[in-house]
Amino acid sequence: MTPLLESYCAGRWVRADDEGEPLLDAATGEEVARISSRGLDVGAMVRHARSVGGPALRALTFHERAALLKALAKHLTAGKDALAELSMRTGATARDTAIDVDGGIGTLFSYASKGTRELPNDTIVLDGSAERLGKGGTFVGQHVYTSRPGVAVQINAFNFPVWGMLEKLGPALLAGLPTIVKPASQTAYLTELAVRRILESGLLPEGSLQLIAGGAGSLLDELTVHDSVAFTGSAHTAGILRRHPNVVDGGVVLGVEADSLNCSILGPDVRPGDPEFDLFVKGVVTEMTVKAGQKCTAIRRVLVPEPLADTVIEALEARLSRISVGDPRNPDVRMGALASLGQRDEVRKAVEALRASADVVIGDPDGGALLDGDPDRGAFLTPLVLRATDGATEPHDVEPFGPVSTVLTYDALDQAVALAARGKGSLVASVASHDPQVVRDVVLGLAPWHGRVLVLDRDDAAESTGHGSPLPTLVHGGPGRAGGGEELGGVRAVLRHLQRTAIQASPDLLTAVTGRWTPGARQPESDVHPFRKSLADLRIGDTIRSAARTVTLADIEHFADFTGDTFYAHTDAEAAARNPLFGGIVAHGYLVVSLAAGLFVEPSPGPVLANYGVDDLRFLTPVKAGDSIAVTLTVKQITPRNTADYGEVRWDAVVTNQDGKPVATYDVLTLVAKTWAAS
Amino acid sequence: MTPLLESYCAGRWVRADDEGEPLLDAATGEEVARISSRGLDVGAMVRHARSVGGPALRALTFHERAALLKALAKHLTAGKDALAELSMRTGATARDTAIDVDGGIGTLFSYASKGTRELPNDTIVLDGSAERLGKGGTFVGQHVYTSRPGVAVQINAFNFPVWGMLEKLGPALLAGLPTIVKPASQTAYLTELAVRRILESGLLPEGSLQLIAGGAGSLLDELTVHDSVAFTGSAHTAGILRRHPNVVDGGVVLGVEADSLNCSILGPDVRPGDPEFDLFVKGVVTEMTVKAGQKCTAIRRVLVPEPLADTVIEALEARLSRISVGDPRNPDVRMGALASLGQRDEVRKAVEALRASADVVIGDPDGGALLDGDPDRGAFLTPLVLRATDGATEPHDVEPFGPVSTVLTYDALDQAVALAARGKGSLVASVASHDPQVVRDVVLGLAPWHGRVLVLDRDDAAESTGHGSPLPTLVHGGPGRAGGGEELGGVRAVLRHLQRTAIQASPDLLTAVTGRWTPGARQPESDVHPFRKSLADLRIGDTIRSAARTVTLADIEHFADFTGDTFYAHTDAEAAARNPLFGGIVAHGYLVVSLAAGLFVEPSPGPVLANYGVDDLRFLTPVKAGDSIAVTLTVKQITPRNTADYGEVRWDAVVTNQDGKPVATYDVLTLVAKTWAAS
Repeated sequence: MTPLLESYCAGRWVRADDEGEPLLDAATGEEVARISSRGLDVGAMVRHARSVGGPALRALTFHERAALLKALAKHLTAGKDALAELSMRTGATARDTAIDVDGGIGTLFSYASKGTRELPNDTIVLDGSAERLGKGGTFVGQHVYTSRPGVAVQINAFNFPVWGMLEKLGPALLAGLPTIVKPASQTAYLTELAVRRILESGLLPEGSLQLIAGGAGSLLDELTVHDSVAFTGSAHTAGILRRHPNVVDGGVVLGVEADSLNCSILGPDVRPGDPEFDLFVKGVVTEMTVKAGQKCTAIRRVLVPEPLADTVIEALEARLSRISVGDPRNPDVRMGALASLGQRDEVRKAVEALRASADVVIGDPDGGALLDGDPDRGAFLTPLVLRATDGATEPHDVEPFGPVSTVLTYDALDQAVALAARGKGSLVASVASHDPQVVRDVVLGLAPWHGRVLVLDRDDAAESTGHGSPLPTLVHGGPGRAGGGEELGGVRAVLRHLQRTAIQASPDLLTAVTGRWTPGARQPESDVHPFRKSLADLRIGDTIRSAARTVTLADIEHFADFTGDTFYAHTDAEAAARNPLFGGIVAHGYLVVSLAAGLFVEPSPGPVLANYGVDDLRFLTPVKAGDSIAVTLTVKQITPRNTADYGEVRWDAVVTNQDGKPVATYDVLTLVAKTWAAS
Repeated sequence: MTPLLESYCAGRWVRADDEGEPLLDAATGEEVARISSRGLDVGAMVRHARSVGGPALRALTFHERAALLKALAKHLTAGKDALAELSMRTGATARDTAIDVDGGIGTLFSYASKGTRELPNDTIVLDGSAERLGKGGTFVGQHVYTSRPGVAVQINAFNFPVWGMLEKLGPALLAGLPTIVKPASQTAYLTELAVRRILESGLLPEGSLQLIAGGAGSLLDELTVHDSVAFTGSAHTAGILRRHPNVVDGGVVLGVEADSLNCSILGPDVRPGDPEFDLFVKGVVTEMTVKAGQKCTAIRRVLVPEPLADTVIEALEARLSRISVGDPRNPDVRMGALASLGQRDEVRKAVEALRASADVVIGDPDGGALLDGDPDRGAFLTPLVLRATDGATEPHDVEPFGPVSTVLTYDALDQAVALAARGKGSLVASVASHDPQVVRDVVLGLAPWHGRVLVLDRDDAAESTGHGSPLPTLVHGGPGRAGGGEELGGVRAVLRHLQRTAIQASPDLLTAVTGRWTPGARQPESDVHPFRKSLADLRIGDTIRSAARTVTLADIEHFADFTGDTFYAHTDAEAAARNPLFGGIVAHGYLVVSLAAGLFVEPSPGPVLANYGVDDLRFLTPVKAGDSIAVTLTVKQITPRNTADYGEVRWDAVVTNQDGKPVATYDVLTLVAKTWAAS
């Protein structure tokens, strides 16, 4: 008997108290492992995650959690071969495995990078800028995101046992949420191996990752406010989860990625022989055959202009004839097996349903030649293309989760968009076209119905990752039938795990809460110029108020002459007088900020290493000859880097004139050393 | 018999085909109106909204929709007196009416302003910046928000018949969604009057606003993907909505704002006599008595340090004794009636439940003196304060929707946070404290459990809008028991109504879709300098590539001397050589951008009126003496203003050196005339 998969529960690997059910190799039918969760204490898992994993993760900053993800990704990369070998038993070819294993690891790397570059080195995230809630500026609002003291449960589909787990794990860990992984049984042995590798590494705080091998039992009954369930799978199971009392009344947040009848549209501008024609056909074939079409993002509906339908089908047939199907252990095999014989039965049933309004025009649902493998023991199915009759409804409702697509025809572009919408919300649509007007119309028509829209043309073809590939930086999910959820999308996925709260307070107390200086808060001036303070000494609110400098007409004329910026508003009094905004000669905005820098700079070498940028510069009041300007510079935000001996300091800069009116506001961005020994 | 309220359905006002149920004056028990929706064709309403209202609204840009909201707000302001008079019949005092009517109109004004300032003058919104998806830059991603082709249904509570309608209507209209309003019957006559005023104005496109007076019938059965329901009311009704098949399986988006056991915490640092002590007590009394405590944001739980409980209760009693209760027509009345006798029964039942673990310490649930009004016909209830016993559970679960609060005590601050969390998710919490550390700890502890947290201290007291007031610019909603929804929050509420989609395309086609120039897209150079083109002639992508200019050591020295910016990296070769980032003298960043302006400027008067700012300036490569720089300036975004004869043009600026390496990138913001006749 093959080994029984173990669950990881409350700090240890545990075995079920029965022998479990066998899991079979997709291509050979041999037993790979057995699975059962009987006797597993899922309540203990939830409590362990809440009491041990959550607090440990939330004690880390986003940058520290990002560093964990990077280390995990490296660790998994080192042990990739074992995962790839086991992956073959799911029916996956090497290409399929690259998507699942390398794709999953790449997602962790991406989140490590995004977490460091786009999230603060802190435990809270500010959302938007402060809102002044009263005229006097003593009452302000600021939205913040904080970590929920809950558990992230992921319930995954069988098709991507590694990627499916990691694409949910990365954002959850980054958000400070401990995770309980519940993979689909069919391919759980691969998820189990990946989880085991992660846990063996010792990189993660205890309690931040647990695994259920087998049924989830009463897991949902254990969840409450602040816990979330991210589900990928069938609409049927999604409906069961949505009806659970803890979801309906208990505050559990449920995210769903379910059925999706994605389409690809051949633009009406495209002619056979155009690069877009071949790209379109190639895209359809790729999506039909990668993972044997077992992808929630695969192309189920192929929408083509009516006159081109036959030509498209011929081109599909030519390409599909080169797809050899069989046991993925054979390196010549281009398409492997479905996950199980049961899955093949499901697909055949779906094809039968489709045949109510569509004819099979390529392939044979019941047979088809194999390059290698036993058609009775292996879950093989050769690619199938159907052609729908006019007014067919089934292709918009039935999702054959295998290498099956249906060709539908359209007359005008708005009809193609209307057909796409009949999917009632999908994960992704694609369009092959090189005509900007066609692309604009079709993309904006498709957008409300999709989480992602891919435009394929000769210009992006070489770098395009294709219709079927969710990317870590782009949202993955779709409205309506696709589940209404959103995953990935860079930091968007992290923010979705956090609670957004509007904080209202005085500027001083808001500054205390957020750790970021709020306009109106205290601006203490010290004897030491803040540019002489290292990160160790610098404090939020530290301020320098400069001396004043008069800007003369000679200054303006000289600056114009020196820089070449001889715009009439700086050089021609008569013309400048006619400018509706200035009504006379004004100083260059760049002159104002240059002089301001001269007013606040500390010339000698010190902890401030460089000014690397400026944000949100606005010129509010014209500076005229004879005006006197001064600048106030305040430490707004301090972000030490974990991997360098310096960090970023953001300074609030306000340049005022002799009347105290602000003439320019901006943020000055500097790199400042963590420590500095005055030489 | 009083008039039967009408519904507005598919372009006309319709009457039910029965006599309807009576709606009674809250204070006098007299009949105000009758209500019924029998015979109403809600299916026709949904179809009308989808086919007439939606397309008309979505043909407008966000700025045009914002202008509609402003006009509506002005129109409602002009007819405010009639609304205020009718409002009294709901039991509302003048102060209550100001919150409902003026607050509602103010919300429209706020959305008009936010829509113009923070959304584009376009029909789509870009989310985040473009993501480069391939090394060559030929394949890029951009998230966009587009309008859903659906209907926004709002189902409101009885307590704010005007504000409740307008706070949902404003964001929905701005998002391009036609709305069907279903007010709670009890106070529907006031909502009906407000809707009638709006429709009479003729400002809104037909089909963008309809009204159901009476039961919603089979409305939910008519909804599908892209339709949304925003519900405010009881958790019980929310549960029924959440179980509706069109919500569970049909893709209808449901937002809920339901029960909430909000708390206010007296900080452990506060002593009697401190300003925060009085502010705290005053806040509790205000929340208990405004709208007779019928606010989802009212303070139900009063958390105080154990030693101060008696003092707090005494202070509450002193203040509450000055609250005169009675018919709001009497100008000396400070607190009016509950909405109905039935509602008063509900509150009394809740108080009975609370008494299982709390004693009434102020007020009498069954009596209490009235200044004016008939206690049998008017739904009067005098304020009640209870004091909970240790370990009480009811105060965390039972929401008495009236002038009732319960005092609970805590020992340490983390216990106060834990007690607050026992509400299982609330709309708002407040804390009175002047201690930055206390405030930081308690706010970050409360944040995950709340949609809003108010900090009250001596500094913000004068301008604070108080615990109970949702503001248009801040999110309103809460996790868990509070429903898990979010409303308001400025443009956040608009974005929630839109669908987010990731678009993947070549830069040229992405530019065609978004109307915003994407790096890598075409940059046509014309004979005419783009600064000589008005908005009428300027096109996305129009580009000027400047000549090169060598930056000499003399330039750097002179700039340092002229501006006073004598930072050692620009002036001291030896010290600069030791700088880890520069390794020698470098040009000032401000010098680089000043010279760049000199390279791209067009000196004579023309359509470019001013450079009003710079965004996202980053210095990427140091410019050393002898380096030669040139700048490429490209039209990135054009935003004509609807209310001025000019608009904003955002230019992409890239300064490169002699090796073609980018040394600085930024956006230049200019105001450009809509038309320009060369003089």
